[in-house]
Amino acid sequence: MAPASDATLGETGEFGLISQLVDIFEGDEHVLVGPGDDAAVLRIKHGHVVVSTDLMVEGRHFRRDWADAADVGHRAAAQNLSDINAMGGTGRHLTIGLAAPADLPVAWALDFARGFSEECALVGATVVGGDVTRADELVIAVTVIGQCTQAPVLRSGARPGDVLALTGRQGWAAGGLAVLGRGFRSPRVLVEAYRRPEPPYAAGREAAEAGATSLIDVSDGLLSEAGHIAEASGVAVDVRRGAFEIPEPLQAVGAALGADPMQFILTGGDDHSLLATFPDTASVPAGWQVVGEVLEGEGVTVDGAAYDGPTGWTHF
Amino acid sequence: MAPASDATLGETGEFGLISQLVDIFEGDEHVLVGPGDDAAVLRIKHGHVVVSTDLMVEGRHFRRDWADAADVGHRAAAQNLSDINAMGGTGRHLTIGLAAPADLPVAWALDFARGFSEECALVGATVVGGDVTRADELVIAVTVIGQCTQAPVLRSGARPGDVLALTGRQGWAAGGLAVLGRGFRSPRVLVEAYRRPEPPYAAGREAAEAGATSLIDVSDGLLSEAGHIAEASGVAVDVRRGAFEIPEPLQAVGAALGADPMQFILTGGDDHSLLATFPDTASVPAGWQVVGEVLEGEGVTVDGAAYDGPTGWTHF
Repeated sequence: MAPASDATLGETGEFGLISQLVDIFEGDEHVLVGPGDDAAVLRIKHGHVVVSTDLMVEGRHFRRDWADAADVGHRAAAQNLSDINAMGGTGRHLTIGLAAPADLPVAWALDFARGFSEECALVGATVVGGDVTRADELVIAVTVIGQCTQAPVLRSGARPGDVLALTGRQGWAAGGLAVLGRGFRSPRVLVEAYRRPEPPYAAGREAAEAGATSLIDVSDGLLSEAGHIAEASGVAVDVRRGAFEIPEPLQAVGAALGADPMQFILTGGDDHSLLATFPDTASVPAGWQVVGEVLEGEGVTVDGAAYDGPTGWTHF
Repeated sequence: MAPASDATLGETGEFGLISQLVDIFEGDEHVLVGPGDDAAVLRIKHGHVVVSTDLMVEGRHFRRDWADAADVGHRAAAQNLSDINAMGGTGRHLTIGLAAPADLPVAWALDFARGFSEECALVGATVVGGDVTRADELVIAVTVIGQCTQAPVLRSGARPGDVLALTGRQGWAAGGLAVLGRGFRSPRVLVEAYRRPEPPYAAGREAAEAGATSLIDVSDGLLSEAGHIAEASGVAVDVRRGAFEIPEPLQAVGAALGADPMQFILTGGDDHSLLATFPDTASVPAGWQVVGEVLEGEGVTVDGAAYDGPTGWTHF
């Protein structure tokens, strides 16, 4: 590998850069949690304020021929609101930056905004600001500010002996994306799951109140996110295939595309399901499913063995 | 003009779109000021929290051959911190979204981050989060969260009879940009003014405490920003050429490029000077210069007459 000073982003990847960036940005006494978790946590007077930001790039995170403008709006909002959900909080206020080619139809931007706004309304959040500028590529930059009524749940609190649990649809959006990638439009339920994810917005706070020791949303892939918990907590995480029932549409897609449907569940993102660890099975709230356990060690295994293949989406 | 539903962004422009967008995004009782001013104002428990977001696109808002990475970092931070300054507040916490080509040197990103962080330190602000993803174009999306210790000063409070006043360098960055655009690197003081603006960070709060009736930062051009005050306040603004002393470097650049140096002052952005209205000359704080007046009517004039030419930067 080239020395860091000569390396390109394509070589170090997103996480290689981020680990160097966090060293540059020092916090202050109002920053309870800085970069590195789902959202930053700020102490502003008496409350915990959580902040997160995400980029979506056309052709990479969305395609205008695979989802209409309102769908893209729903997805963009959902992705950001989910980061606050993954802290045990609720999104309150959002800003949108829209860098767009001059030939982008205004109707697209307005439909995007309507979809975005509708998704925000699901949790009572509102758009409070934005910026619009010209670019060759369509890039959407969203920042969300949320509130936690209790201590935010970080990625770093998992302990050996904890159970790993999941809530929300998992693998559906990845199945929908695979279908779209082959030029199909069905099973419709999966395509719709990709176009309009349904994050379990109430579940983050429920997990926090139930004593979750760590919490993350599955944006990039279940095994990938489990790996973030393992790394931040200094533990190993084992995921059990047998814990998952493969939904019928994913079975159908697997058969049609010659793919293992379990792969959608283990490595799919975009559903914004929540993954958490709890001290024991008894503390897992209703609606959550135990899917593995926390062990001493490091890294992520599936049924006790290394997983062969990519564990999720990478941004470079 | 085509009906809105068929129009492109190139046809309506930034402001045409924004005016339609703000109708879509409804606020709630915690949003004291929504989109449309320099920053949104939120009531979070006891304080006024102000939020603003800005995009910078390579080739449009910066060029890597005209400014080094640290310079671009300083500019990106300054531009956003200035929006909070323009509310009478102080920037506290920022997020950065970086969409970048895979061949972007990591060293560039790190130097950018260092410059950004140094600029933030000038006001005691810190970076609390971010996102990095791949794109064909280099796009930088910054969101800043700030605090106002008094009521934020909006664009909409100017009244006929008020005086218009300015603080900070004005036209220097535009002069530097003109020089760079012709392939020159001097006068160095102007090129540096473009690369590292020096917004008058203390002046926003001072203006608020002195009773400013409206306040805005000059990002896109003095006449353009005066126009925003005029429109938001429902008044006319007249700017007096004679109020400005043309600094020697701008005279030199005007002579060298065959340009009227007053044009840099009237239509230049990027210095992030502050433009405000005050009830009378006596209330204008030290360090501010009276440059015009507020009248009944609408629009912006220069010495009582319409200004012939573009009044500032447009994003489409």
